[in-house]
Amino acid sequence: MYAFSNAVNSMHSEDIKLLMKQASGKNLISFAGGMPNNDLFPVEQIDEIYNSLPEDLKKLCFQYGPTSGYPPLIKSLEAYLRNKGLEVDDNKILITTGSLQAISIVTQEFVNEGDIILTENPCFVGALSVFETAGAEIHSIPIDKDGIDIKALKSKIESLDRKPKFLYVTPNYHNPAGIIYSPQRKKELLEVLSGTGIILLEDDAYSDLYFKEDEKHLTKAMKSYGVKDVEIIYTGSFSKILGPGFRLGFMLSSEEIFEKAETVKQALDACTSNFMQILGNEFLAQQKLGPYLTFLRSEYLERKDLLQKYLKAYMPEEITWNEPKGGFYVWLKLPSHIRSTEIFRESVTKGVVFVTGRTFDPASKKDDRLRLSFSNTPKDRMEEGIIILSEAIKKVLQKSKSTSPDQLVL
Amino acid sequence: MYAFSNAVNSMHSEDIKLLMKQASGKNLISFAGGMPNNDLFPVEQIDEIYNSLPEDLKKLCFQYGPTSGYPPLIKSLEAYLRNKGLEVDDNKILITTGSLQAISIVTQEFVNEGDIILTENPCFVGALSVFETAGAEIHSIPIDKDGIDIKALKSKIESLDRKPKFLYVTPNYHNPAGIIYSPQRKKELLEVLSGTGIILLEDDAYSDLYFKEDEKHLTKAMKSYGVKDVEIIYTGSFSKILGPGFRLGFMLSSEEIFEKAETVKQALDACTSNFMQILGNEFLAQQKLGPYLTFLRSEYLERKDLLQKYLKAYMPEEITWNEPKGGFYVWLKLPSHIRSTEIFRESVTKGVVFVTGRTFDPASKKDDRLRLSFSNTPKDRMEEGIIILSEAIKKVLQKSKSTSPDQLVL
Repeated sequence: MYAFSNAVNSMHSEDIKLLMKQASGKNLISFAGGMPNNDLFPVEQIDEIYNSLPEDLKKLCFQYGPTSGYPPLIKSLEAYLRNKGLEVDDNKILITTGSLQAISIVTQEFVNEGDIILTENPCFVGALSVFETAGAEIHSIPIDKDGIDIKALKSKIESLDRKPKFLYVTPNYHNPAGIIYSPQRKKELLEVLSGTGIILLEDDAYSDLYFKEDEKHLTKAMKSYGVKDVEIIYTGSFSKILGPGFRLGFMLSSEEIFEKAETVKQALDACTSNFMQILGNEFLAQQKLGPYLTFLRSEYLERKDLLQKYLKAYMPEEITWNEPKGGFYVWLKLPSHIRSTEIFRESVTKGVVFVTGRTFDPASKKDDRLRLSFSNTPKDRMEEGIIILSEAIKKVLQKSKSTSPDQLVL
Repeated sequence: MYAFSNAVNSMHSEDIKLLMKQASGKNLISFAGGMPNNDLFPVEQIDEIYNSLPEDLKKLCFQYGPTSGYPPLIKSLEAYLRNKGLEVDDNKILITTGSLQAISIVTQEFVNEGDIILTENPCFVGALSVFETAGAEIHSIPIDKDGIDIKALKSKIESLDRKPKFLYVTPNYHNPAGIIYSPQRKKELLEVLSGTGIILLEDDAYSDLYFKEDEKHLTKAMKSYGVKDVEIIYTGSFSKILGPGFRLGFMLSSEEIFEKAETVKQALDACTSNFMQILGNEFLAQQKLGPYLTFLRSEYLERKDLLQKYLKAYMPEEITWNEPKGGFYVWLKLPSHIRSTEIFRESVTKGVVFVTGRTFDPASKKDDRLRLSFSNTPKDRMEEGIIILSEAIKKVLQKSKSTSPDQLVL
């Protein structure tokens, strides 16, 4: 039951119900969770850090800290962000309880019920749940292999009778689409927003997880482009580079936005765990992140390659997908009359789960995609999982050929 | 600077500014913080727990968990709450990132801008900041040595044109007033709420910190009284019985309230740190809490006795105060024409800080009280601190005698 809840983290509620009913007790093969595999965590490094903490620092782990964050961690993050080319001095860092809290804080700071938020389509489902809970009116803009559709973004902004509060994007190794924005597209995006007064919320949880050193430059944050007339709030996370269990994230913003954000944060949970911040800081300050990332990148690259190999070997020809340059996700494209929810129904009974396309559509409709995550699937079960999945897809395709398209519309 | 931010945790923003200006670099004696002393934390016990975690559990520390909480911790909390006489089976537990998050979740679940919340006066300042951030209309009701003023509560409810969303109270070892509600007063409070549809939000962060075993029964939660026609949400915290740095709290509520709360929690930070939950759970499950509480109670009793001794020895006769039966706080009463903010101005220049009375008044006005916390002051500096504080009080009293009362009103 517990392993279950973990596996289903970002799944659609109806898919979860089906999973509970169909697969309870089964030895699932999951391509669903957007989390690192338990075997990849830097357990030894944290052991070493914890056990060599000076007595005073260990006591401080147990104590309240300042709302804005543990000051040495803020210092370490400044160095980490400078290294990514980000302008830290004119901005301020707020430590948050996971980067989802940063998204939540920004939403509480700027959005009242009925206000407009722009998102990508598909969009990270965690952010969608924040925006929906706030009662925002979500308008989503399609993305292609290079990023958000600039024309569609422009005409969306022009068509609205009110100014959207912000545009939320995840440009690097997009969840769920697996793409990375081209530098050109990032530039165009900034040009569209320039002068509109629409804030850009740039969520960057995956940029350290590029596969090739010579593609690292592609991850350059828009906040580091030096554009002065777009207000950019940048959020980052320790979830993919240390562990989600730490619940450590941060936001980098102008001082004005920071100050209000700090007040909101104070009213949300007073401060983020000092214990987790102190361990996280030592991980950065003792230079343990660099070698760990080298290890992670090669692990994820291997998993990405394996998944690509099995997809190529077993998927029917009607199915297409991307080959990601980093991150966790492959975004399968189905023929447009096939719904991934049908495939889920089929595959879950055989013990394979993934996340259905509609999960990432703010309108919960568009369903001709499915997200496969390769970050958390045991390498030695991937092949079996993909065989089962492709059988399920073939079955649904077969059924669709023997049925008139009308009957498939739900 | 950092020790500073810690010392000022719950202080009024203007008092903090003064503190920064006047006392920067000084070796402060602080009666301000409502936190345990760093030397009292169960560091050895957590060391032992951490270092004997099985490998699998250690890995799980790094991972996401279910939004509602780490299931073994929920089980342990069920036992802990049953032991306090609470009805667990008809209710559900939600683990939160500190109990302040529980208050924040309940507020987001029930309160829209302009809605009414009832509080005590004085009221825990952390809760006030949540209610203010939500844009609630706060109506506060005075308390006396036995709890909330029942007559005032009744007539407040009758006088309002809209139903308050909930009444927020901290009945056990009140912060800042240091009182505990009498069983009679708890009963009367429930009678007043009965049938009104006003939810009772019962915040119980201190009940394990009674000084005398034969007074333990006084801490009995109203949620355990078996009253059926008052909806009670009960919140608790690990901050005072393990460490605030863990950011672990919980709420116990009906299933209906739990379900909405879980959705709000999902949009706030996805889940509470598994790392902190696993350590917290082992602390409970390995029966380390009981012996630790025995140690804590005797430590706090000793500090309480010391503070009472020095207050009796040095305070001018115009000053009165309570002798708490548990918890952290003494709530000094000044002559009504003296403002604690004046005393703060005086004492801070001599290196002694506390929290001013107005901090706990929703209207930020009532200022004839001051809160002394004895939980975090080094025992060997208490006497010096109280001498300095009483000198400051005497000076302000003296000044008030040589000035006409009109000139004192700000």
